[in-house]
Amino acid sequence: MIVVMKPTATEEELQRVLERVDALGLEAHLSSGESHTIIGLIGDTGRISRNAFEVMPGVERVVRIAEPFKLANREFHPKDTIIQVGDVTIGGDQIVIMAGPCSVESRSQLLEIAHAVKEAGAHILRGGAFKPRSSPYSFQGLGEEGLKYLAEAREIYGMPIITEVMAPEEVDLVASYADILQIGARNMQNYRLLQAVGKQDKPVFLKRGLSGTLQELLMSAEYVMANGNPNVMVVERGIRTYETYTRNTFDINAIPALKQLTHLPVIGDPSHGTGKWRLVAPVAKAAIAAGADGLMIEVHPRPAEAFSDGAQSLKPKRFQALMDDLRILTAALGRSL
Amino acid sequence: MIVVMKPTATEEELQRVLERVDALGLEAHLSSGESHTIIGLIGDTGRISRNAFEVMPGVERVVRIAEPFKLANREFHPKDTIIQVGDVTIGGDQIVIMAGPCSVESRSQLLEIAHAVKEAGAHILRGGAFKPRSSPYSFQGLGEEGLKYLAEAREIYGMPIITEVMAPEEVDLVASYADILQIGARNMQNYRLLQAVGKQDKPVFLKRGLSGTLQELLMSAEYVMANGNPNVMVVERGIRTYETYTRNTFDINAIPALKQLTHLPVIGDPSHGTGKWRLVAPVAKAAIAAGADGLMIEVHPRPAEAFSDGAQSLKPKRFQALMDDLRILTAALGRSL
Amino acid sequence: MIVVMKPTATEEELQRVLERVDALGLEAHLSSGESHTIIGLIGDTGRISRNAFEVMPGVERVVRIAEPFKLANREFHPKDTIIQVGDVTIGGDQIVIMAGPCSVESRSQLLEIAHAVKEAGAHILRGGAFKPRSSPYSFQGLGEEGLKYLAEAREIYGMPIITEVMAPEEVDLVASYADILQIGARNMQNYRLLQAVGKQDKPVFLKRGLSGTLQELLMSAEYVMANGNPNVMVVERGIRTYETYTRNTFDINAIPALKQLTHLPVIGDPSHGTGKWRLVAPVAKAAIAAGADGLMIEVHPRPAEAFSDGAQSLKPKRFQALMDDLRILTAALGRSL
Amino acid sequence: MIVVMKPTATEEELQRVLERVDALGLEAHLSSGESHTIIGLIGDTGRISRNAFEVMPGVERVVRIAEPFKLANREFHPKDTIIQVGDVTIGGDQIVIMAGPCSVESRSQLLEIAHAVKEAGAHILRGGAFKPRSSPYSFQGLGEEGLKYLAEAREIYGMPIITEVMAPEEVDLVASYADILQIGARNMQNYRLLQAVGKQDKPVFLKRGLSGTLQELLMSAEYVMANGNPNVMVVERGIRTYETYTRNTFDINAIPALKQLTHLPVIGDPSHGTGKWRLVAPVAKAAIAAGADGLMIEVHPRPAEAFSDGAQSLKPKRFQALMDDLRILTAALGRSL
Repeated sequence: MIVVMKPTATEEELQRVLERVDALGLEAHLSSGESHTIIGLIGDTGRISRNAFEVMPGVERVVRIAEPFKLANREFHPKDTIIQVGDVTIGGDQIVIMAGPCSVESRSQLLEIAHAVKEAGAHILRGGAFKPRSSPYSFQGLGEEGLKYLAEAREIYGMPIITEVMAPEEVDLVASYADILQIGARNMQNYRLLQAVGKQDKPVFLKRGLSGTLQELLMSAEYVMANGNPNVMVVERGIRTYETYTRNTFDINAIPALKQLTHLPVIGDPSHGTGKWRLVAPVAKAAIAAGADGLMIEVHPRPAEAFSDGAQSLKPKRFQALMDDLRILTAALGRSL
Repeated sequence: MIVVMKPTATEEELQRVLERVDALGLEAHLSSGESHTIIGLIGDTGRISRNAFEVMPGVERVVRIAEPFKLANREFHPKDTIIQVGDVTIGGDQIVIMAGPCSVESRSQLLEIAHAVKEAGAHILRGGAFKPRSSPYSFQGLGEEGLKYLAEAREIYGMPIITEVMAPEEVDLVASYADILQIGARNMQNYRLLQAVGKQDKPVFLKRGLSGTLQELLMSAEYVMANGNPNVMVVERGIRTYETYTRNTFDINAIPALKQLTHLPVIGDPSHGTGKWRLVAPVAKAAIAAGADGLMIEVHPRPAEAFSDGAQSLKPKRFQALMDDLRILTAALGRSL
Repeated sequence: MIVVMKPTATEEELQRVLERVDALGLEAHLSSGESHTIIGLIGDTGRISRNAFEVMPGVERVVRIAEPFKLANREFHPKDTIIQVGDVTIGGDQIVIMAGPCSVESRSQLLEIAHAVKEAGAHILRGGAFKPRSSPYSFQGLGEEGLKYLAEAREIYGMPIITEVMAPEEVDLVASYADILQIGARNMQNYRLLQAVGKQDKPVFLKRGLSGTLQELLMSAEYVMANGNPNVMVVERGIRTYETYTRNTFDINAIPALKQLTHLPVIGDPSHGTGKWRLVAPVAKAAIAAGADGLMIEVHPRPAEAFSDGAQSLKPKRFQALMDDLRILTAALGRSL
Repeated sequence: MIVVMKPTATEEELQRVLERVDALGLEAHLSSGESHTIIGLIGDTGRISRNAFEVMPGVERVVRIAEPFKLANREFHPKDTIIQVGDVTIGGDQIVIMAGPCSVESRSQLLEIAHAVKEAGAHILRGGAFKPRSSPYSFQGLGEEGLKYLAEAREIYGMPIITEVMAPEEVDLVASYADILQIGARNMQNYRLLQAVGKQDKPVFLKRGLSGTLQELLMSAEYVMANGNPNVMVVERGIRTYETYTRNTFDINAIPALKQLTHLPVIGDPSHGTGKWRLVAPVAKAAIAAGADGLMIEVHPRPAEAFSDGAQSLKPKRFQALMDDLRILTAALGRSL
């Protein structure tokens, strides 16, 4: 941590800062520049808030040097985390595709889509049973009934299943069915929920919030890990910007940046990242070209009748075509599908 | 709802849209312009998703006309909602000031601050007992112990208390102590939590999310109201933008916009809205001048030692000076403090 | 400037950084923390780019300490800049109101509006003769004809005039008519234009760009000042954010922040800052309550017929009512109108 | 254009809207829904501002249906625009790579880099002679001297050259040397400059502004085209968002969205789009996978000594490696390099 004094700071103000450094059990290194004096703090500054110095008279600003995430930090854990879910390996050479409907709408709808995505080569089946909806009047998901259909589809098609969990008290129920627990974008900083999924042992699929920074996303991963669960995937799913042509702005930079910052698997969600099915395939390919370890893609045979997210769902035939393209692309990139 | 056809749409594509309109029990009004045909849908379109038409061949876009919030909508409920909390009336002529520390740190800290803000004229005491923190390694609040100190301060100083609740399963506990339940910005779209506070009867202080739109904020208020609790305050606390000089960008437009869109009381939080104590007083005045019904302000006697948010906390003397200024300002605006 | 080494930096990498510091004629102060070594650079670092160190092996990041603006910086020039335009004093105790139509549409339109705003108590007449329009097919302004009408209105009503200049080669022409030159938001970083208005002596009204940071705005003011013209006003006119309910988000924090960062007069433009006439009056009051030195407000007697910006224009009667309110408000704030 | 009346609109207010429709020479189609009446306007609404109706009593909002750009619109011009620059074809099957230093710093620096990028397979040489810099104290470019070095490099290496032009009065000079004129992001809405490059015949490389929407970018292209120059490339170079880890957020969605909206060639600039050299190669590949027609990439042999943008410049060896990867990637995508 570095404390920068104002050009106008008095000797007395500087002295008081040095006393506080001492009181906190840290050591101070002073450098006096042309206009500013800066103080480097030596010791365990992780437990000190910037605020301890920022509000002192004569202080201009405080710069934190060390990244605040540790368990998720590649600097301290250079080796890639590999997550094994049944037969599927996430975070290795193989690109993992999770596909399925936004919402589980009925048994037949789910089985139809599960069949289609399995045929096309998807590895994991997705489907929402508990749905976070911005309107209280919208379809809220089938609940446990939806979980049962997902479990049935897993049996029939031999694919692990991933589904969202929305509240701490629902974690046990959802984890009793699902192979991977999804934390939705609006819950990226729902800390009670992060703690709850950290205390059980199903892998966690953690979506970046609509205005979450990369550092905040990794701090939320840290919450899960600090509670005991090391198996976290971090997911770029588009951020909220001023651009309204697309539903969100898929932050492609986040893919290689996260790969460099953390050892956790990095997944892209081009369905939410664009909100428009015509953009899903090109952005899916882009995410893979940028280094993503997998994709989550929404598929629906009759998008116009989907209970949610139809505008961004691919029809099975288009999903199949995307999988064919991805097979060639991943080979060119030295990975497999 | 309006469906806009592409200039290149075929007669057959148009026909298929009209058939769906019919199948959904709606009526269609056609207008054919120079390049686009548009179809106005007549009937109860609230239950239809845009998506039902957006993905059909030949459709360019779908425009929703009616605002999706009803209970919170001033158009249908022109009269201001007044919330009574003990002796304090929120949403009327009087400006209501809620003040106190970010975190309840100890019994003596809380009582000292409660005393100071009461002296200065604040109406309601704030203080966090359950703290949402971006790092799992930061101070997480005193929990129920903090609630007890708040209740004690209420007894001593005769001020209602407001504190945050973070999870559905903690609502009963927090509501058994607090007079107002605060939903934090990161939980604006934590729907389980909104449902839970909607099902009890303490008033709800609902903060706008970091990237929440005004419409989403009102939809979240609608969640609480649709679950049975009509007493909701909506709170502007700064949004996340590209500007990094301040912690957040206080959206002053939101104050009069919300007053026009909804009948619920509108509160401003200049502490989080700026993140810098030097900006708190000017922005507090601005919020009142723009029409806010109240303010929430963080106060701490020793900001440098605050467990959280010290950089944006006012010292009691500065808070007192702000209250003096507000007294003159509210009088000039025809309101009282 | 501070160079932060990576935890994994080798002694050799550190040595190479120190050699470069030496080669650049600077002195280095070393502090070695738990995980990072930091190097404080002493000397004239203003001329050095961060980049000189950022790309060196072993370097984690480079932090610039000193603000890059000097002439505009209140730290070095604590006294408020006062700009005198005819009888009007900008930047003193008096709040200055600039009002008029978005575009000068005709002689009679301008004179009608000039009469109305003068009656209401405005100090300076605004009106666009050269109009930056996002479509090449929209009305582009009356050009020099518009400037002549503005000059005529100045004669008749005794008010200084402000109008926009769009290109370096038009500066002489516009300056030969106008009392204040306006630089539009889209030209905040049009450096040739900033240089050109810096080389003449009419005061400059510099609007913040749609995504301009406070620091960039002040750097653009610095461009004008470094070219010889010290009379610059900086203007908050709303920034572009994700919120679409309003045309822009008026950054109220910017008003006190700019007042603290610079000695230049700070003006608010609630017309562009909101884009909706129903929000103009409350946000105008907010800007004054937050400490602005003046306002620019668009007025049009028949907004529906305005060639541009009708939706955000006040009718003369509403402008008059706002001026009445502002008279009471400014008195309560210890200023005058 | 569609006018939506408020639920509370009176018959008289509706009548006045219909009269205005008539006065403007348009025809009105009425649809009365449950709560809102909507009016479809038939006729040439392109010349009418939304504002003509938006401010009328009883009107809730006005929705524009037709895209305001025509010459740049793929709907009216389905065939891809192909731009021929010397031997290089832009907008066809071949991916075009433009590479070189951010700034032309000296004759030897430019020739060294030109040699390197030519060897690696780049098609066009970039280099800035007139540099827009946010500080008036930074290096502003070599000016005409830089143009001469670029022209010399073109002779030696047989590559067309692209360089930025900053002001209308410099267009003739720059166009007398350059093969392609670059409009920088900060000048995307410098309309005088757009008009000036529209009136000459060198192709134009138009960068998206930091907060430019896709529609605004295409309207700016329309400015150039409406002034007579059909040869415009539109360039995604990263937008400004709340994320600070990267210099900008490369909007990957923009690549396929622009390809669908316009027939103009679409180029990606991963150097500015990321601001970090470690992210340039992955994002370059992503842009190509998403369908870009070309890339602009900054290259410098000694980034730490670069006068500008060193942090985002690739060393020649890394650029060479990227070109090798792109060769495999473009083949897998059915294109060539």
